[in-house]
Amino acid sequence: MTTNMLTHDPLIIVNFKTYSEATGKKAVDLARKIAEIGIKTGVKVGVAPQFCDLVQVVAQVDVPVFAQHVDPSAPGAFTGHVSAESVKAAGATGTLLNHSERTIKLSDIQKAVLRSRELGLLTVVCAGEVESAAAVSLLKPDMVAIEPPELIGTGRAVSKEKPDIITNSVRRIREVNPTVKILCGAGITTGEDIYTALKLGAEGFLIASGVAKASDPARVMSDLCEAANRFAERSK
Amino acid sequence: MTTNMLTHDPLIIVNFKTYSEATGKKAVDLARKIAEIGIKTGVKVGVAPQFCDLVQVVAQVDVPVFAQHVDPSAPGAFTGHVSAESVKAAGATGTLLNHSERTIKLSDIQKAVLRSRELGLLTVVCAGEVESAAAVSLLKPDMVAIEPPELIGTGRAVSKEKPDIITNSVRRIREVNPTVKILCGAGITTGEDIYTALKLGAEGFLIASGVAKASDPARVMSDLCEAANRFAERSK
Amino acid sequence: MTTNMLTHDPLIIVNFKTYSEATGKKAVDLARKIAEIGIKTGVKVGVAPQFCDLVQVVAQVDVPVFAQHVDPSAPGAFTGHVSAESVKAAGATGTLLNHSERTIKLSDIQKAVLRSRELGLLTVVCAGEVESAAAVSLLKPDMVAIEPPELIGTGRAVSKEKPDIITNSVRRIREVNPTVKILCGAGITTGEDIYTALKLGAEGFLIASGVAKASDPARVMSDLCEAANRFAERSK
Amino acid sequence: MTTNMLTHDPLIIVNFKTYSEATGKKAVDLARKIAEIGIKTGVKVGVAPQFCDLVQVVAQVDVPVFAQHVDPSAPGAFTGHVSAESVKAAGATGTLLNHSERTIKLSDIQKAVLRSRELGLLTVVCAGEVESAAAVSLLKPDMVAIEPPELIGTGRAVSKEKPDIITNSVRRIREVNPTVKILCGAGITTGEDIYTALKLGAEGFLIASGVAKASDPARVMSDLCEAANRFAERSK
Repeated sequence: MTTNMLTHDPLIIVNFKTYSEATGKKAVDLARKIAEIGIKTGVKVGVAPQFCDLVQVVAQVDVPVFAQHVDPSAPGAFTGHVSAESVKAAGATGTLLNHSERTIKLSDIQKAVLRSRELGLLTVVCAGEVESAAAVSLLKPDMVAIEPPELIGTGRAVSKEKPDIITNSVRRIREVNPTVKILCGAGITTGEDIYTALKLGAEGFLIASGVAKASDPARVMSDLCEAANRFAERSK
Repeated sequence: MTTNMLTHDPLIIVNFKTYSEATGKKAVDLARKIAEIGIKTGVKVGVAPQFCDLVQVVAQVDVPVFAQHVDPSAPGAFTGHVSAESVKAAGATGTLLNHSERTIKLSDIQKAVLRSRELGLLTVVCAGEVESAAAVSLLKPDMVAIEPPELIGTGRAVSKEKPDIITNSVRRIREVNPTVKILCGAGITTGEDIYTALKLGAEGFLIASGVAKASDPARVMSDLCEAANRFAERSK
Repeated sequence: MTTNMLTHDPLIIVNFKTYSEATGKKAVDLARKIAEIGIKTGVKVGVAPQFCDLVQVVAQVDVPVFAQHVDPSAPGAFTGHVSAESVKAAGATGTLLNHSERTIKLSDIQKAVLRSRELGLLTVVCAGEVESAAAVSLLKPDMVAIEPPELIGTGRAVSKEKPDIITNSVRRIREVNPTVKILCGAGITTGEDIYTALKLGAEGFLIASGVAKASDPARVMSDLCEAANRFAERSK
Repeated sequence: MTTNMLTHDPLIIVNFKTYSEATGKKAVDLARKIAEIGIKTGVKVGVAPQFCDLVQVVAQVDVPVFAQHVDPSAPGAFTGHVSAESVKAAGATGTLLNHSERTIKLSDIQKAVLRSRELGLLTVVCAGEVESAAAVSLLKPDMVAIEPPELIGTGRAVSKEKPDIITNSVRRIREVNPTVKILCGAGITTGEDIYTALKLGAEGFLIASGVAKASDPARVMSDLCEAANRFAERSK
């Protein structure tokens, strides 16, 4: 599957974290539900399962798959590291980097972005606030995701609770990088959250518990995708 | 496959690190060669591929498979971590912990050993010298692997260069833990290295470049396994 | 001042953490109060201020002073590290290691204990639970401090809430190290907490907020020291 | 002492790392030599000794003093951390951050810069290559220092070996931050290295072994400062 993820069309990536609801066979099931809603609504979607689950999700579901992290090291004597090569060999489309639950050194973000680019992996670099988001944008990742850590997992959406973070990030990022795709996340659970964020300038979303731990993930995913479509409709 | 790995019979685990020679499909190929020599010689063998490759190796090769590391965290909001649950769901038999290339905090070794045991994963905790090896043995892993970091990857075998480390580790470990299986590693490339180490009290081996980067891994593996058999023969 | 800290007499070390109540000149003031109570009651006491405050406390107060951490690296190109040499040059008596707020790798505990011993610095290695406490005791520090992290700073004393951790730690530590001095800590604020812990087998204490953040640190310190004396009296 | 360090005049900061030649009393001696050359030549100079040595150097030498690192945490229960408050209380003028020997997470750079600013401490954020240097400049430190890690400690000066890194960094940094003072470092040992770097656009220097481990630090320091003056002369 080769949808171009880097257009200005809304993109929704679901981060499976290490949730037991999204591990092993359940990772495949969840990815399948998300992919189906993507196809039904025409909205671009992606999934970010655990390392061990990448191969199965890639093999069994037609959806772009992201790793949740890669280490910056080249192949070699690095026991226990996650090489970008192994993620690429697993068939992944890209990787998250520097998530607030797996923050890494600035020099490692830089190296991991470069290695990923060489291997043809898309990078989504996360940042917790405005200035860091601008800073990582200078490292030329394909996407940057702004997620205030204090809202992650709360169900209180960044677009409602801290709309300024989105608008200011978009403004500051665009000053230094005119093309990086700008995602946001943290606390997003409803179509309304999505719609508001798109109005504020976001171009995509990194969502985790809102979908992965929902009692009916497909229903939530539908709600989110339909909101993205309503916004696209309005914008025409 | 359910060989009991914790007997006193020699065990040889090959660590694939992040070597490009042992990533993706090449991980499966290498694991297959190792498994075949294990069957042919009757020596217990295991492999430790990268996280992304665990599922494929488990599915395609009849050999005990170890992860190279797991994080101590329970399932949950831990983006980018390697949960023991995901490793278990991938079908792994166990995991390495605290390898010198992926050392972790003492408290995390303790937590990871406990979680792994709950999930039925065997643990191989690595240590670089005698006192640390005894210390980790107190945490009751299934196996402990002594590897002087300065010899890793050198081809200068621990059993030849630093035999005292093996004999002293065996003595100190046995004072505090009478049952943990004792592996050693670092620089081992020949059957002679294996034979010497077994004489010194080692009960198994953690080997990486010696096999994984060999021009003919099957031949090296044969050499190692035959030496293990020669030792067993002699001991009768 | 050269009281022998490693006898079986109770020892109370106050950890200043990075509390603003115990930084800069306030570190000197607090250390002086603690030293005075030590002299008045005859109980052995020590203080562990921040790195930047070591020199002043050593110069101005007659009390054994501990760093809160040292890095394992030898002197050299290690910008931003805390060398054991600099701590020794500051006149410190010893150092804490592996506190739950500054946990370090097992191999680094081992190296830091060795370097400290070479330099004549006493080491107090912390551990959060029974098995880790026994494990670090094998590395032959001068003292081990058991502090369940979940009780630190709560005012709920380990000796009341989890007496088993003390008794089991003492038992397990003594099996592998007959001489290391055994401290405990976490939540200790009253003489009664001290008395109970001594009865359970503790030989000393690592205390932080209970003294450093008390409205009247001298009064609390008196209470603690008098309890230590009551226990010593009873034991005769 | 309150020289304004942030003008465009050349500034030379000597990083003492954990060199034994620059620890304890030797830190005071070395700082004194550096300060004297600064006064004699009229060139702005600074020193960055170890944490434990800050108080003594501040008390005994009239020179701006920098810590080598601070942790981002606020005062509190952070045993073993280096609080910006303790560095400020020691009388320091500022702090280095993210040196290649003490790299930190991007989010921690951001927090440490903010805390330092609140406390009136100047920040010198280090970066190893062009894009990272630009990225950290967005976090609005007072100074940024570009040091290719592969040249640190080699005696092969960045201004000779990799002049492009200086010119490109200056250009990229100025695009996103017009005022941050731009230092460079790595391998600088002679006045000629300084002169070349100033021509390439550097406004100051972070130097370590070139001075601190020199057989005659005062002579080297003189050479460096005189080169800075020759450059200033030429520029008039």
